[in-house]
Amino acid sequence: MNKITKETVKAFMPTRERTSYKGSYGRVLLVGGNENMAGAIIIAASAAVYSGAGLVTVATHPSNKAALHARLPEAMFVPMNNTQQLKNYVSSMDMIVIGPGLGRDDESLTILRTVYETVKSHQILLVDGDGIYLHMNEVVPKPKATLILTPHLGEWRTLTNLSPDEQFVEVNQEYVKDLKAIVILKKARTEVYFDDEVWENTTGNPSMATGGMGDALAGMIGGFVPQFDTIKEGILSAVYLHSYIADQLSLTHYVTLPTAIIEQIPKVMKDISKDKQKRWI
Amino acid sequence: MNKITKETVKAFMPTRERTSYKGSYGRVLLVGGNENMAGAIIIAASAAVYSGAGLVTVATHPSNKAALHARLPEAMFVPMNNTQQLKNYVSSMDMIVIGPGLGRDDESLTILRTVYETVKSHQILLVDGDGIYLHMNEVVPKPKATLILTPHLGEWRTLTNLSPDEQFVEVNQEYVKDLKAIVILKKARTEVYFDDEVWENTTGNPSMATGGMGDALAGMIGGFVPQFDTIKEGILSAVYLHSYIADQLSLTHYVTLPTAIIEQIPKVMKDISKDKQKRWI
Amino acid sequence: MNKITKETVKAFMPTRERTSYKGSYGRVLLVGGNENMAGAIIIAASAAVYSGAGLVTVATHPSNKAALHARLPEAMFVPMNNTQQLKNYVSSMDMIVIGPGLGRDDESLTILRTVYETVKSHQILLVDGDGIYLHMNEVVPKPKATLILTPHLGEWRTLTNLSPDEQFVEVNQEYVKDLKAIVILKKARTEVYFDDEVWENTTGNPSMATGGMGDALAGMIGGFVPQFDTIKEGILSAVYLHSYIADQLSLTHYVTLPTAIIEQIPKVMKDISKDKQKRWI
Amino acid sequence: MNKITKETVKAFMPTRERTSYKGSYGRVLLVGGNENMAGAIIIAASAAVYSGAGLVTVATHPSNKAALHARLPEAMFVPMNNTQQLKNYVSSMDMIVIGPGLGRDDESLTILRTVYETVKSHQILLVDGDGIYLHMNEVVPKPKATLILTPHLGEWRTLTNLSPDEQFVEVNQEYVKDLKAIVILKKARTEVYFDDEVWENTTGNPSMATGGMGDALAGMIGGFVPQFDTIKEGILSAVYLHSYIADQLSLTHYVTLPTAIIEQIPKVMKDISKDKQKRWI
Repeated sequence: MNKITKETVKAFMPTRERTSYKGSYGRVLLVGGNENMAGAIIIAASAAVYSGAGLVTVATHPSNKAALHARLPEAMFVPMNNTQQLKNYVSSMDMIVIGPGLGRDDESLTILRTVYETVKSHQILLVDGDGIYLHMNEVVPKPKATLILTPHLGEWRTLTNLSPDEQFVEVNQEYVKDLKAIVILKKARTEVYFDDEVWENTTGNPSMATGGMGDALAGMIGGFVPQFDTIKEGILSAVYLHSYIADQLSLTHYVTLPTAIIEQIPKVMKDISKDKQKRWI
Repeated sequence: MNKITKETVKAFMPTRERTSYKGSYGRVLLVGGNENMAGAIIIAASAAVYSGAGLVTVATHPSNKAALHARLPEAMFVPMNNTQQLKNYVSSMDMIVIGPGLGRDDESLTILRTVYETVKSHQILLVDGDGIYLHMNEVVPKPKATLILTPHLGEWRTLTNLSPDEQFVEVNQEYVKDLKAIVILKKARTEVYFDDEVWENTTGNPSMATGGMGDALAGMIGGFVPQFDTIKEGILSAVYLHSYIADQLSLTHYVTLPTAIIEQIPKVMKDISKDKQKRWI
Repeated sequence: MNKITKETVKAFMPTRERTSYKGSYGRVLLVGGNENMAGAIIIAASAAVYSGAGLVTVATHPSNKAALHARLPEAMFVPMNNTQQLKNYVSSMDMIVIGPGLGRDDESLTILRTVYETVKSHQILLVDGDGIYLHMNEVVPKPKATLILTPHLGEWRTLTNLSPDEQFVEVNQEYVKDLKAIVILKKARTEVYFDDEVWENTTGNPSMATGGMGDALAGMIGGFVPQFDTIKEGILSAVYLHSYIADQLSLTHYVTLPTAIIEQIPKVMKDISKDKQKRWI
Repeated sequence: MNKITKETVKAFMPTRERTSYKGSYGRVLLVGGNENMAGAIIIAASAAVYSGAGLVTVATHPSNKAALHARLPEAMFVPMNNTQQLKNYVSSMDMIVIGPGLGRDDESLTILRTVYETVKSHQILLVDGDGIYLHMNEVVPKPKATLILTPHLGEWRTLTNLSPDEQFVEVNQEYVKDLKAIVILKKARTEVYFDDEVWENTTGNPSMATGGMGDALAGMIGGFVPQFDTIKEGILSAVYLHSYIADQLSLTHYVTLPTAIIEQIPKVMKDISKDKQKRWI
């Protein structure tokens, strides 16, 4: 199993070209946040913006708009229950993240189905949180996009019917192939399963055991992938840095909140890319 | 009377296990914030989140949702006037804090009664602010949960009919036994009454005499208790650190606002647990 | 004319007694913020809270509630267009500030009249901004409270019909006596007119020439007066420190925004009172 | 082609007179932010406020009010779909910025037309973002105000029908003359076209390639122009400093968000004007 280390991520970090513009860094749509769970999608969207995504749009319940813009004016809003608008926005995106705070009711399912039906093969679709629940428990169309799933251990167990002591890497790999997805298995040392290789993260600590942490990771991946040379490099770098920042914060913080991690993303990305990055002044 | 000191709290601070997850640190529900008093429950919920509670949900008036999520995306929302939803959420919690900004009208009383009727013996229920008012002045069912009350001096007088010069520790202890509750008597030097022992806090100062200070304490206790080995250790540590942070801030601030205290919680918890806490990197 | 200096303010700063509680530091109501001008009353209320007022309540247009609590959870809300609630709140206050963003239409006037009719002689009423406009241009009842007016130069001209070159201190003093009010005449060097003495401020600079600056001053006076030994000491200290903070900030900021000033209040109050203030730890 | 350098901007920076007041620094109206895009106009308005504009008012969709005031209490609100109110506000302004997040539908067009019809020759009108789209693609009245357009390269191509390799400075200048506008052509090295001279910016870097960056520039120009001796000096200084701050931030941040840039404006303006600026204390 490959290890994701600081050196790996340093090598992956992209350099921004002088004549690039916001379109060069990805159009990302985050879908989630039902009437009760605005926070999850706000956290995910903030992570995408602070990761340097070019343009971030949030499809969420209309009642979440004021809180979204009060915290994150950099993001645009779409009402997720407006099927036609949702389809239009999905179609124009490079990457879609669905699931944080999406809920598990009929309305949530309709939204998930709309996204699944609309995505095309050149797009990337990350399914997280309640999205994974619906993906596992409901009849949903097969999305044509490159699929990324981010289950935690409990969700993985439901997805695979594997008890914890059966979840060896080789066994997991077989299940991942069946799912035709890239799987990010979230645990103390997160594992990332691609079709033909598996990576284990080397960062992370229990100060991260708090609500919203997974939403921040989903948003970071959404922000990283369209900026990086390959999907693999974007995912591995996001997984590593999300926990790397928490490790740094944990030296001085008993609990590392997702909002505290997000704030550090631009600085840590700069730090890690310093050798490669051109100085602009 | 035992004294709560820095050494006491240091000994109580729990160590997080590497394989723990957010469920390990408590599901906490905060109930309060009527149409006029969103701020009280936002302060309490923020204190719970920054104290490291695993999952924080806020049952409040629906008109408070935008402000809650704009300030604290880490928290989930439930409309407190939806009796069925409230019952469901109460049932799935480790700890419930009711009272900050709850109000004192019929609607407030209905909500308090629903919570009191629903809690089970394995749960912990903290009653604060307007919750204490209703508890004292209205006919309410006897909650089955472990009960914590946080009266200030005036409320204690109403609860016990004791004039200030009759409130000796021994007398108070008798009344506490009748109440079948743990009582946190808030004053310049706060006293904590358990069934068989009494503790006096050694921190606190008059820069804390400002609105919302009690809400912050209620939220900290809500966040601490499910993380600590025992209820007693969680309560005493929260009481101490709440005022300890204010003491530190008072060196440079004339008034120490509850939001300023909350911001410091993760750092001070880390500081106080440094000798015990494993370094994760 | 007396000069307000750092030494004056140092001598005025009150010391908090160990057994004081939030009620010791004043119940303050701020009335203002119509449908278009939430910001003005949010700034005023923030200034009152950060000045150490014991309990701060904001009577404003209901549509301003979310923004108020998102920024300032320490404050309570009352709908200002609910006459009965407004009366009840006014009656229980030590100090009322009316005017910031209040508007100048019929609804604004009704609110002003309600407050003017309700206040009693033991209360203090500060009238600012649109409140001054209504006070000058409409028929309003004579408030029984101690009255403080905070006109800027243009408003003073309208109030007195004095052209700028007629506004000598002695002339102003005559008009102030007629008004039966304490007048804070806002200008480059603000003057404070009491019945029998006049004070000139020694701080202030043109980086303060920006929207909301007067609202911050009104809120600071509202927060200071109930904490200080006398109304005069509270007013003079607020006037001085408001501009003193801006002077400090102007060393590094081209424009000093009211929100930037407000953030510094607790630190500067501590600083200025260091010699007198007991250390609590 | 003239270069905008630090020395140029230093020479342009105005000195505030001791007796100036907020009216001395411009009344600025920002028009934009439809139901989905509150963030754009909030960013623009924040930039105007932090640039030191005397009085900032935001005409936007009513559903954006809470987020606006939660982030920026210094700004006033007007509902942009209320034609009469919009006209009244436009008439009383020194400078109007229209376009950020305005949208491109019939309602957006009505608003743009209202502003175009209402402005007078003594006023300055900056058209940005969706405003440029409507200006190019719809029949609109000729505004009487001094007109500033801020197209990016793609919009310029549509405006002029010039392919990228035909866009020489001399050619652009001809088109600018036809447009009877000052044109700020946004690119890696932004160019500013006046009637008789062209300036090239010397700051800017690809960390700025992120959503909202143009809104921040539009707002800064809106804030700068009424404060500076001439329109030209205000525009050139805003263009330079917007990217200068990003250059500074890019030393430590991989992506420089518009909100991060805005926060630095008051400090950088002070820094750049230090030699000229009087010290007030």
